Amino acid sequence: MTPKRLEAFSDGVIAIIITIMVLELRPPDGSSFHDLQPMIPKLLAYLLSFILVAIYWNNHHHLFQLVDRIDGAVMWGNLSLLFSLSLVPFATAWFGENTGELAPVILYVGVQLSCAVTYTLMTMALLRIHPADSPLAIALGHDRKGKLSTVLYLAALPLSIISPWIGIALIIIVAIMWLVPDNRIVRALDAGDDGQSPD
Amino acid sequence: MTPKRLEAFSDGVIAIIITIMVLELRPPDGSSFHDLQPMIPKLLAYLLSFILVAIYWNNHHHLFQLVDRIDGAVMWGNLSLLFSLSLVPFATAWFGENTGELAPVILYVGVQLSCAVTYTLMTMALLRIHPADSPLAIALGHDRKGKLSTVLYLAALPLSIISPWIGIALIIIVAIMWLVPDNRIVRALDAGDDGQSPD
Amino acid sequence: MTPKRLEAFSDGVIAIIITIMVLELRPPDGSSFHDLQPMIPKLLAYLLSFILVAIYWNNHHHLFQLVDRIDGAVMWGNLSLLFSLSLVPFATAWFGENTGELAPVILYVGVQLSCAVTYTLMTMALLRIHPADSPLAIALGHDRKGKLSTVLYLAALPLSIISPWIGIALIIIVAIMWLVPDNRIVRALDAGDDGQSPD
Amino acid sequence: MTPKRLEAFSDGVIAIIITIMVLELRPPDGSSFHDLQPMIPKLLAYLLSFILVAIYWNNHHHLFQLVDRIDGAVMWGNLSLLFSLSLVPFATAWFGENTGELAPVILYVGVQLSCAVTYTLMTMALLRIHPADSPLAIALGHDRKGKLSTVLYLAALPLSIISPWIGIALIIIVAIMWLVPDNRIVRALDAGDDGQSPD
Repeated sequence: MTPKRLEAFSDGVIAIIITIMVLELRPPDGSSFHDLQPMIPKLLAYLLSFILVAIYWNNHHHLFQLVDRIDGAVMWGNLSLLFSLSLVPFATAWFGENTGELAPVILYVGVQLSCAVTYTLMTMALLRIHPADSPLAIALGHDRKGKLSTVLYLAALPLSIISPWIGIALIIIVAIMWLVPDNRIVRALDAGDDGQSPD
Repeated sequence: MTPKRLEAFSDGVIAIIITIMVLELRPPDGSSFHDLQPMIPKLLAYLLSFILVAIYWNNHHHLFQLVDRIDGAVMWGNLSLLFSLSLVPFATAWFGENTGELAPVILYVGVQLSCAVTYTLMTMALLRIHPADSPLAIALGHDRKGKLSTVLYLAALPLSIISPWIGIALIIIVAIMWLVPDNRIVRALDAGDDGQSPD
Repeated sequence: MTPKRLEAFSDGVIAIIITIMVLELRPPDGSSFHDLQPMIPKLLAYLLSFILVAIYWNNHHHLFQLVDRIDGAVMWGNLSLLFSLSLVPFATAWFGENTGELAPVILYVGVQLSCAVTYTLMTMALLRIHPADSPLAIALGHDRKGKLSTVLYLAALPLSIISPWIGIALIIIVAIMWLVPDNRIVRALDAGDDGQSPD
Repeated sequence: MTPKRLEAFSDGVIAIIITIMVLELRPPDGSSFHDLQPMIPKLLAYLLSFILVAIYWNNHHHLFQLVDRIDGAVMWGNLSLLFSLSLVPFATAWFGENTGELAPVILYVGVQLSCAVTYTLMTMALLRIHPADSPLAIALGHDRKGKLSTVLYLAALPLSIISPWIGIALIIIVAIMWLVPDNRIVRALDAGDDGQSPD
């Protein structure tokens, strides 16, 4: 089984997820700048979710450049990730409408946690069918960033009870952490020349 | 005629179908955990439909790796399948809002039956243009799982009258039956080495 | 300029158009079979539009297998077609809610006419940059079916004033006419062996 | 890193953006031609946005035919462009419902300005990793059209205060300016023969 069609399907689903979130941004009833003001928290929630989903696409993109083969477990691991990601628009809509409230933040963190866990499960399924000295296994290494994200999301759940803003802050910290490109994989790609770079 | 663009188009449509179902999950009016409770049956209905549509994508993916050629009949068989699948979001929305009611379960089973029948029609159109000793014909074999699914869906229609929950149970049984990857095709792919596996 | 990415983009847009129409099928308020009845005209309108859009995809698919090159005129011809097709969901929604009323039928026919005209404009732009003895030019030939469709749509406009059902009947006739695969192009593809057919 | 999957993902997102705008065109309540009249400004706003988004897809398409490699900066530049483009449906909806009002025009111009700026940022990130004598660098040249668009959008912001219609006129001027295909890149593609043209 080759990963090409799985990549294409995942790209399609992620492209739809990232775009339908914008359907939540309904034009306000009035036509003045003042009417636009209540949109700002929704817009910021959308921006945050856009970045988080884009990070998954980005990492998925890098990861699958090193994938030689997939099996049923990888396919269902990937589908679990896509299911988790597909809940992001719903969680974002509730979160954007009720900024600073506890339950929407917990749901939002929970959905992000589910994305992080299913992504990890997918990488574990990939590692099972790639040798320990494969570029993929070497690139993934100890996956410190992945583990740290999961820990931060887990910590965000009880800490949000003290203040939902702590939960929001932790999600933003995870996003910033990942905005730095995943150098382990970039390095592995550079080492194993993909025959495309001009120099 | 080569199947590449048909595959790409089908992937696109299935990716959209699987994702727009999430648009049914509207954020609740309130902002407490309590307000989230009525969402649970809708979320479970979405999960079930996500898995069922994902199974079709998965099987479609495996099937077309063995397809050498397509014709007009295959193309329209495939479009009938896509049409049936496109009714899943509508059936899921009605089913998720009225759990345990007869008519929504019958509609849901009916749409699944339509997907199963059109998928079978498409495989029959494929078998007509592939020789009996082609990897595709051998892999499809007697298609016991496909026939059993159709029988179970057909049985679910009258049995739902006794209790809609029997219908729901039968759909879940079909889903579980398919979650096990389709070994016939996997075996055929392994036999006919696709030149990608590293070992 | 090669047509690969134009094909992929068109497939994406057509896949979305064909699928978002289903969003018009809102689950009824009640949960009995009786509540489903008012959905039937909407479902039939959706089926008709699904078939008409699928025919465009099908023809587009066949056409571009013979296309060697594209230019800016083809690209904008194609985008005009996509714009016309993107109005189908809107026209279908109005038509499905007001079956047999004049204005929705005229709008529906008008949108179909716009699709037919822009498709023809795109093929003309293609013929301008392909030699007269190219497989594409030979396959398109006199394009009798395309011209007949345009004539039937044009006739449907005044005839709908007598009865909107005549307009609907003419659209269905065009659909049936195209459901028969476009043999001119199929024949050209068979003549110019694409190196994929096993026999 | 190769640009293939970035192109595919961008195509997917742009295809969705260009298509979901049509969801704003809700069928009117009545069923007469008169009921269709208030749709006309919305339809024109949709047409304008369709053309503007299509221009971005068109330019993106041309640009990436000359791209040899991408890096993290290009990827995030591209994602910023996609985020800006994803706000077009929202801005279009508000603009189409309130034609000639100041705030919706300013928002619409602002979103277009954001698209122009992020596109420029992406090309700058591409130029950083392509040599000065690469076809890409030569084709982009001084990017007079890009700079002029940004200047016109910037001018549209204060001039809209005099009359929102000046802002609308300037956006239409930018659209017409780009509808002429980007000859610099077309010329570069013709010079560096892509081995596909039949003559």
